[in-house]
Amino acid sequence: MEIVRLGIIGIGNMGSSHLKSITAGNVPGMTVTAVADVNPARLEAAREIKEDVACFDDGIKLMESGLVDAILVAVPHYDHPVLSIEGLRHGLHVMCEKPAGVYTQAVREMIAEADKHPELQFAMMFNQRTNCLFRKMREIVQSGELGNIRRTNWLITNWYRPQCYYDSGEWRATWSGEGGGVLLNQCPHNLDLWQWICGMPKRIDAKLHYGKWHDIEVEDDVTAYVEYENGATGTFITSTGDAPGTNRFEITLDGGKLVAEDGKLTLYKLDTPEPEFTKTNTKPFGHPAIEKIEVELDGENPQHKGVLIAFADAIMNGGKLVADGREGIFGLTLSNAMHLSSWTGKAIDLPLDEALFKTELDKRIATSRRKENVVEVVADTASSYNSGKVK
Amino acid sequence: MEIVRLGIIGIGNMGSSHLKSITAGNVPGMTVTAVADVNPARLEAAREIKEDVACFDDGIKLMESGLVDAILVAVPHYDHPVLSIEGLRHGLHVMCEKPAGVYTQAVREMIAEADKHPELQFAMMFNQRTNCLFRKMREIVQSGELGNIRRTNWLITNWYRPQCYYDSGEWRATWSGEGGGVLLNQCPHNLDLWQWICGMPKRIDAKLHYGKWHDIEVEDDVTAYVEYENGATGTFITSTGDAPGTNRFEITLDGGKLVAEDGKLTLYKLDTPEPEFTKTNTKPFGHPAIEKIEVELDGENPQHKGVLIAFADAIMNGGKLVADGREGIFGLTLSNAMHLSSWTGKAIDLPLDEALFKTELDKRIATSRRKENVVEVVADTASSYNSGKVK
Repeated sequence: MEIVRLGIIGIGNMGSSHLKSITAGNVPGMTVTAVADVNPARLEAAREIKEDVACFDDGIKLMESGLVDAILVAVPHYDHPVLSIEGLRHGLHVMCEKPAGVYTQAVREMIAEADKHPELQFAMMFNQRTNCLFRKMREIVQSGELGNIRRTNWLITNWYRPQCYYDSGEWRATWSGEGGGVLLNQCPHNLDLWQWICGMPKRIDAKLHYGKWHDIEVEDDVTAYVEYENGATGTFITSTGDAPGTNRFEITLDGGKLVAEDGKLTLYKLDTPEPEFTKTNTKPFGHPAIEKIEVELDGENPQHKGVLIAFADAIMNGGKLVADGREGIFGLTLSNAMHLSSWTGKAIDLPLDEALFKTELDKRIATSRRKENVVEVVADTASSYNSGKVK
Repeated sequence: MEIVRLGIIGIGNMGSSHLKSITAGNVPGMTVTAVADVNPARLEAAREIKEDVACFDDGIKLMESGLVDAILVAVPHYDHPVLSIEGLRHGLHVMCEKPAGVYTQAVREMIAEADKHPELQFAMMFNQRTNCLFRKMREIVQSGELGNIRRTNWLITNWYRPQCYYDSGEWRATWSGEGGGVLLNQCPHNLDLWQWICGMPKRIDAKLHYGKWHDIEVEDDVTAYVEYENGATGTFITSTGDAPGTNRFEITLDGGKLVAEDGKLTLYKLDTPEPEFTKTNTKPFGHPAIEKIEVELDGENPQHKGVLIAFADAIMNGGKLVADGREGIFGLTLSNAMHLSSWTGKAIDLPLDEALFKTELDKRIATSRRKENVVEVVADTASSYNSGKVK
């Protein structure tokens, strides 16, 4: 194979953004040969981006066309596992947009299908894993040089969305259409990075507020508290109502502290790890000496483009994916546990009771109300990352 | 009265620090004429600071001596309300060290006594209220120019204490001696400032860890989540185990965001308050324009000295106190509610069930274990503020 022929299923905000980028030549080794969408206007818009792209009103028809080697699934969340499974069954490599799904049971089926096709690449679009800042954070934490994690705090409230964002698609921010709010749509990257860098907690207690800042039925404000196996604790605070929000990720370890904010990574390194210091120090107000280090980053942050380049390389040369599709279940488990904690008013121990989550979700789907007066818009997502830029 | 004659009751870390400062002439209008402590070695140490100071082995004897117009109560926490009440009954002005007490019932008795003596000044040593940063924060929030509060997050983990700190007094960090840990000893200032600036919440859900980082029986790690009457939420995270810790206080409001960190106050001001913006904006990824402003501070931060100067001025000239003693109950209510939430495993609605708190506290006092092998030290507290300075 000299070039990967990609079919994009779902030409909404993300799908059209990928189509533009690949058509502009950002991903050597990949070309978009086909797109599918249920909405004819979107197919028309796709043809305006790439004149000769084959258009289908159905994802399965695209898979059966023989025009593609791989698919990129960029439809509403519930169909992520459904279409990924179909793609694998059709012998196609699959890149799935985040989140992996809305509930973990469906994602387990997707993983089981992927396990039946070891010859196919199955990947998640966790483009934030390509960010040098998060890569470096993970490298430092996982190296063990700073010892055990003690506390993780991610204040990630810079996902501001105005009401018209939610009014731009009738499926948006509904239980039946999207299956959740900020946790399912904006935060999958952060939840994935959190577990990718710090590992999975064992217990989650979350406070969610539904339609607090917007006229929507799902959550737009979350404060979650977690406990890890080793006794460490953490918080994850997010919202689509804060303007301007904050993106500050702090990890305290035995040997120091890491703070990621404003695109910079700062390491506060102790000359003696705290557990040792406290045993031998004799000054009541003493503390280990601290060195503040601006951590050097490699500056690389190829985002979606980087994920797709790696995907093409994995397909053609057996290279390494940015994120295996099987890893999508971790962040979704955090999200599901936060919802379940809110719905039951209790802390949730992992492994999650996945059947209970599905039962509770189904109750909400049953009474879900699709929005009226929707003004459908395919927006320019270029401004959606790092919202709230300061002038 | 030309000068206020002060008696300091309790010449431990804080008492001796006040004695040194006043004796050095830092508080015009105030002189220390007497001190009291149950420990003869401490009285000896006091005489080394001020040769002619009258020494008593008992606070009541000091009050009855006729040598003082006012007392400063700097004994272990349980006796704060006890000695403050005695002082008021002896017709003395009273400056009480933080916290106001260990449980609110005792503090209510203290307030009732103060109300019987309107001619006496009754003050709390909330020295952090003199910090220009917190004064300015309060001024901006209370002015209403930024609208309603939406979220408050105080990550205040820079209260690092090594084990030997706790081993420096047998009463320290015990239920019977101190009645709590980081919430009672280190955080009263922060809890007071939090409510002074943002108001009291209506509901508190807190996760406390006891003896997590130290060999102590009380809490040294706290993550609290609160909800306010207007729907705003907040977190308060503290610990004496983090090295280096963080002190970052963020308040999000309708019209922008305030961030206090590293002694600086930053205001992110929106051109249109969010509630208005979201109603009229038509861009799905739009957000209000943000102006980043380094807020100018007056630079004044007189701390304990400022509180004592105001106290002397209030006594002699009817000037305004930095903090009326009656306001000490607010921060203590937050602290008590956090403990009660942890002990009951439930969110606590305010007003607090004060009798239940006392019953639960008494259970812990009943099995409290005073420490052995204590090495009693009166430490130099000069290095205890803003612990964890970066080199």
